[in-house]
Amino acid sequence: MINFTNHNKKLKIENAVLNDVPELCGLLTILFTQEEEFRPDFQKQAAGLNKIILTPEAGCILKASADGKIIGMVNLLFTISTYTGGRVAILEDMVVLPEYRGGGTGAKMLQAAKDKAAQEGCTRITLLTDGSNTGAQKFYKKHSFEKSDMVAMRYDAEAH
Amino acid sequence: MINFTNHNKKLKIENAVLNDVPELCGLLTILFTQEEEFRPDFQKQAAGLNKIILTPEAGCILKASADGKIIGMVNLLFTISTYTGGRVAILEDMVVLPEYRGGGTGAKMLQAAKDKAAQEGCTRITLLTDGSNTGAQKFYKKHSFEKSDMVAMRYDAEAH
Repeated sequence: MINFTNHNKKLKIENAVLNDVPELCGLLTILFTQEEEFRPDFQKQAAGLNKIILTPEAGCILKASADGKIIGMVNLLFTISTYTGGRVAILEDMVVLPEYRGGGTGAKMLQAAKDKAAQEGCTRITLLTDGSNTGAQKFYKKHSFEKSDMVAMRYDAEAH
Repeated sequence: MINFTNHNKKLKIENAVLNDVPELCGLLTILFTQEEEFRPDFQKQAAGLNKIILTPEAGCILKASADGKIIGMVNLLFTISTYTGGRVAILEDMVVLPEYRGGGTGAKMLQAAKDKAAQEGCTRITLLTDGSNTGAQKFYKKHSFEKSDMVAMRYDAEAH
């Protein structure tokens, strides 16, 4: 007999508020340390999170709470597509505290993000994930995200 | 001696308005016919273009005009990044009429898009381009867009 520890019995997923920003910054630091293209910067992370929370028409941050703390987060940013003819969402900053991974929290957060996107009238969700992170790609594929053959390119104004 | 025809002597790049939507739809049809992942749909294209033009805080459409018609377009959509800490732009729907390609119109439109993004306080521009379209990738690289190793994945709510 194996006992499974279910970390997520009391998991709650809801919109983040301004008071959550310091804790969310901690999660982003974990994410940006782990992702190849990014480096953490607490001030910038806090500024970006504040702006999203204060501009609900631009997007929202979903937080997953358990054991009296935030154990995961995911952002949805809303934009407009000439392809779908309406609102679409960009999913960013999906992260779960390392000690809470493998318990289904990510799947529940992703479902909450899909529900939220649908409520907001978004018919499509696009995300970018590390090319080398096959675990993440498998996870998203399992949850009906299809890999695109399109290539992402970025222009950094501050570098020019 | 070679005579270069300069199509773009009288090129004008400015924000598109609602009256431009039918002509812009024609350009999008060319783009979506050419891109592997997309299929043209006039109604949806018109609806998306209208929404962007009517929501300047969400984005803008730049049109390039010459010879009394619209010969090119590019969209900028504005969003918020927790990485940069502020506004960033997504560049979409970059297209020039086939008979006007190779004359520098694309480069001028891209510069106009960078200028517009800067005016809007966006420090970064991200785009997705066809993985098989090496010409487009070279063009963007020449104009300081760096290829990212991140992979794009999409969830289509209408397919589930």
